[in-house]
Order: sequence, then structure tokens, then C-alpha cells
Amino acid sequence: MTAPLQNDRFLRALLRENVDITPVWMMRQAGRYLPEYRETRARAGNFMSLCMNPELACEVTLQPLRRFELDAAILFSDILTVPDAMGCGLYFEQGEGPKFHKPVRTEADINALPVINTESDLPYVLDAVKLIRSELGGKVPLIGFSGSPWTIATYMVEGGGSKDFATVKGMMMAQPQLMHALLEKIALSVIDYLNAQIRAGAQAVQIFDTWGGVLTPHDYRDFSLHYMEKIVAGLIRENEGRKVPVIVFTKNAGLWLESIAVIGADCVGLDWTINIGDARKRIGDKVSLQGNMDPSVLYGSADRIRREVGDILSGFGHGNGHVFNLGHGIHQHVNPDHAKVFIDAVHELSAPYHS
Amino acid sequence: MTAPLQNDRFLRALLRENVDITPVWMMRQAGRYLPEYRETRARAGNFMSLCMNPELACEVTLQPLRRFELDAAILFSDILTVPDAMGCGLYFEQGEGPKFHKPVRTEADINALPVINTESDLPYVLDAVKLIRSELGGKVPLIGFSGSPWTIATYMVEGGGSKDFATVKGMMMAQPQLMHALLEKIALSVIDYLNAQIRAGAQAVQIFDTWGGVLTPHDYRDFSLHYMEKIVAGLIRENEGRKVPVIVFTKNAGLWLESIAVIGADCVGLDWTINIGDARKRIGDKVSLQGNMDPSVLYGSADRIRREVGDILSGFGHGNGHVFNLGHGIHQHVNPDHAKVFIDAVHELSAPYHS
Repeated sequence: MTAPLQNDRFLRALLRENVDITPVWMMRQAGRYLPEYRETRARAGNFMSLCMNPELACEVTLQPLRRFELDAAILFSDILTVPDAMGCGLYFEQGEGPKFHKPVRTEADINALPVINTESDLPYVLDAVKLIRSELGGKVPLIGFSGSPWTIATYMVEGGGSKDFATVKGMMMAQPQLMHALLEKIALSVIDYLNAQIRAGAQAVQIFDTWGGVLTPHDYRDFSLHYMEKIVAGLIRENEGRKVPVIVFTKNAGLWLESIAVIGADCVGLDWTINIGDARKRIGDKVSLQGNMDPSVLYGSADRIRREVGDILSGFGHGNGHVFNLGHGIHQHVNPDHAKVFIDAVHELSAPYHS
Repeated sequence: MTAPLQNDRFLRALLRENVDITPVWMMRQAGRYLPEYRETRARAGNFMSLCMNPELACEVTLQPLRRFELDAAILFSDILTVPDAMGCGLYFEQGEGPKFHKPVRTEADINALPVINTESDLPYVLDAVKLIRSELGGKVPLIGFSGSPWTIATYMVEGGGSKDFATVKGMMMAQPQLMHALLEKIALSVIDYLNAQIRAGAQAVQIFDTWGGVLTPHDYRDFSLHYMEKIVAGLIRENEGRKVPVIVFTKNAGLWLESIAVIGADCVGLDWTINIGDARKRIGDKVSLQGNMDPSVLYGSADRIRREVGDILSGFGHGNGHVFNLGHGIHQHVNPDHAKVFIDAVHELSAPYHS
């Protein structure tokens, strides 16, 4: 039924198996820096109607693959589909970040939240996954994803984005049991969500913990990492006769890599604040690493970009277990030609490290 | 002329000398969480007129000392007075962060920038320092401060605050020599600014590098740390017959402590993402440490606050070289009674570590 996979470099690298060259993709590769994305989004009307339309979500997922030699596609969606399905009422105001009509602040709010059933609550996501798999025709693997419970909870409690996370951290400090009850419901929802994506055809999954790095080491362990570990333990790890690797990415967590490396994920994502060679020395015997070029290097010249790619490749060194990526999503004002320089440089410059 | 210092715990701890109990102050201790501050600010009209009025700046500097047993006062001012004096035209819009009328974007913009002369360009800051010293009457030492060149540059180039620092990092990537020219001028201005504060009576100084942590390890070294090292080398280190300790604080720099510890500062500030015991093991033989309680712990109960204080004290352990502080500024919605619990707990619980 499904076409055989023609390029499995990405999946192999995640599992620390041999590859010919280092695979590469970009977080937010289907995004605003591409004029064809902006055109499709305008056609959809707004961001959420783009997410909720499987044909258009498939279209924007595939757009970067037509331009660049990427080694993976990633489902076009948003980490806030889950809390939206839990009843928080996601909306976007012009020029602002995401907001929720019903922020979660009290015990009653949390008791009222359901654990989602992805098949019935988020069918548009699964339809998009199936359509993308079909359209990819085995060219490269498809990545599914979710936000981490802590990261999703920050938006649910704050009612949107935040600078100092005062409300959600206030709840965590003053009513830790309430916060755990909320995180538990989100974690169960995320397990259902990611497993449904895997059953629909996602060949690897990534958990985005964008805001775990705002916590203390012990609060990170208790309020973020613990729930990601629970999720990893609940995931389908093999499908279509092949392993389904799991990537965990906490931004600003360079100090805590050892604890992240042992929660059962196959790969740990790195932002650009850590030297990838140091990260490999610390945890490279346990997991593969994904990252970690500063997205703003793409504002530099072709030479600057190639130099940075070369530095990161030599920092990681010879051998297996590296998926090249940016350390965070690609910025919206980057010239797509610079993204091409980046991706081509990874392939061209990485061959000697795999000989 | 100046009254003898009655409580020098803070200065002694910065220099890793013996103290009876651990000294404590709070970043942004003169701030919006205090009703008396809000009243004075309303009287001043707005934030900048408060900064520019030495009597009112002195008043708000002293307010937290009337409530709490703090071991240091810190000049009430803003890190953006320097770029304002360089001609960028600082203003604040209702409900928004700081902005500049004239952002710095081109070579011509940078060439046109002066290096400030604090005596003539920022007399109100020096008047405030002198007045505060006089009003303190030797009760506790007064801290002067400045932003770091990189942190100041982010506001100058972005024209205000930023989320992804796309413009300033774009300049750094595409025109590194231009960025160095800008940072050099800011560094020279900061040296003049801090030395003028010291001559006016500041007994210790802190360099706030709020945004150094958004860089890669090597860009941090070249574009932030290098200029802080230059500043430290240019500072007056002894005044009124006593050493003037220097504190350097980069937020989100836990991975880079070893490199920060050797730029010549007496003390390294820590945010809450690092265990202070780990930090001490890494650099405690070179510098004292300042920090590092998550400000949001102050939303918790008195028990929760005391427990966290106890954990940080025991994390640092016995001996000298710790100034207790929050890991960042106190949040505006914190109950001042909780700040009192925090400060009293540091004093009460720290005595056994100095016996």
C-alpha cells in the first residue's frame, strides 16, 4: 500500500546507524520564509484554517521538499491543536501570537478538561498525515510532532504566549498538585495524539519542549521531563515493520542533557547555545543528536553559512548519530536561497565524516 | 565626608572574605511590586522622569531598604540611559517595552554615535548616586550598574525589545565588523559610565548581560564576553580605600561559566537554571557567585520559599563567596510580604554555613 522508502538517512541517523551523508531538515521548514507558503496561507484565509485543511496542510508540507534536498518532511500543524481540542478555544489575533478564549486557571477548569481522542477530536490532523504520506510516495520519511505537556500548559494557563510565565509558574509554585493534574491530562492526550499520528503514517515523532528551559533543574525534572518520559513510554515504537524513532527537544536545556538522554527517546535535539562536540561527549553514547545551527546564521553570506556548517560537522566529528538541523525554527525573513546553501552544504561537507 | 559602612557583608562576600551570614539583595528590588514605588512613579509621571529625577530615584532606591533587611542598595536607573545619551532617543509607549526613535542600522548610524561623557551627558545618574550614598549614611553599600555592550546593542539595533533578535543577529552575521564597531563604542561608553558611578560613590558595580544567552558559544565569546572583559579591565577597582568589586551576570549562560569566570570580575551572577553547587564546583575557586532563586518561587507559600532558600544554601555549602539573590528581577505581581520571607530566610538559614 505504501511506497517503499527511497531515502531513509534520517531514520537511520536517529537510530545511530550508518549513513552516507548527514541527513538534514529544518524546524519550521514549511513556513513564512517561503513565498509559496505565504500564497497558500493567504488562500486558506488564516493560519488555523491552513492547519485544518488536509489538502492545504499537505501542500505546504511538501513545498520545501520541492526546493531543497531535505531528508525528511514534517507535518504542517501547530502544537496548540491539542489544547484547542481540549476545549480552550484557540484563536489568533492579527499580528499577535496565539491566544485562548478559555485559559485554565482553577481546579474546576482542570477537572472539566477532557483527555482527547484524536480520531474524533482532531481528524483533520490524521487526514493530513495520510495524504502527505501518500503524496510523498516514499521520497523521504514524515515526522509527526506534539508540544510537551509543560509547553502546552504554559499557553493554556497564561492564555497565550508569555515573557516571564508568571501565571503558570505561580500555579506551579502555589498549587503544585493542580499543575500535576493538568500536566497528567495533557500527557495522556499527547500519547493518544502521537500514537494516532504514527498509526496514520508518521515515521518518526518529535516532542517540542519550547519552554522547559525556563524552569529550575528540579522543576524541569518534575514538571516537564517527567511527563515527556511518560509519553515516550506510551508511544508505539514500531510500525510498518520499522522502528519509529522519538526525538525530544527542550530549548535552553544544555545543562540538563544527561537527564534528558535517559528518558527513552532515541534522539535529543540541541539548540545553538551548546557546542555539539561537548554534547556528544556527554550523551552521544546513549542517543543521537539533532541540531544545532543558530537560525540567524542564515542571514549571513554563503561563505558564512558553509563555515558554520563545517564547524558543526567537525564539532560532532566522525561516525553515526547526527541529524543536522537548525537549533530552532527558521526565521520568517530568511532568503530561501540561503536555506538551500545550508542544506546543500550539510550534504556536501558531511561525506568525509561517514567514510 | 562619607559615613563609615555599618554592614559590609555584601562587599566581603563578593571578595570571598568571611561573613557572619549570607548577604542578600534582589535584582529590581526597587520596583513595581512595591505600592510605594508605584505611588512615587505616578508622582514622577513616567518611568524615565523617575530615572531622571535624583530625589525620586533616591527615594525609590531606599524604599525596599525600609521594608527588608537587605544587605545592599542598587541605584534606581535603567540600562538604556547609555544609548539614550548616545542619541538614540529612548521612549516608552503605554503598556509596551522601551523603544528608540533612532535605531542603529547602518555604518553611517554607527559612525555618528558618540562615546558618552557621563559627567556632561548623564549628570542625573551621578547626582542620584551621590544623593543615595548620602541618604544611606553607611547603612549598606550602594551598587552601580550598566547593561553589557551586547545587551545594549540589541535594543539599539532592534529599536526596542525583541523575541528572536533577527535584526541585530542579522547585522552580526552579515556585517560582523560593523557590529564590532558598535560594540566598541558602547564598551567605551560603559567604562566611562561605570567609572563615573564609582567616583560618585558606587561601592560595587554589576554588568547586566540580559541577552548574551541568545548567542552561540563562539559568538558569545566574540560579541559579548570580549567587550565585558574590556570593560572590567578599564574599571576603577579601588576607591575610598576599599576594593570596588565587579559582578558580571549573563542570563542563560550556565554552559559558559568557565569562560566568564576568567575575565577579571570578582563575582559571576547565576540565573536559576543551574544548580549553584555545580556552579561552585566549576568556578568557585576563581570567583564568588551571586544568585540564584527563581523569582517565581516568591509566588509560593512561606514554607515553599524557605525550602527553596534552604536548598540553595545547602547547594552552595559551607564557606565564603556567596551573595544570595534571585536569578532575575523580582516579578511585579509578587506580594512584598513574600519578599520579606525570602530575605529573612536567607539570613536565618545561612548562619550555620558560616560558623
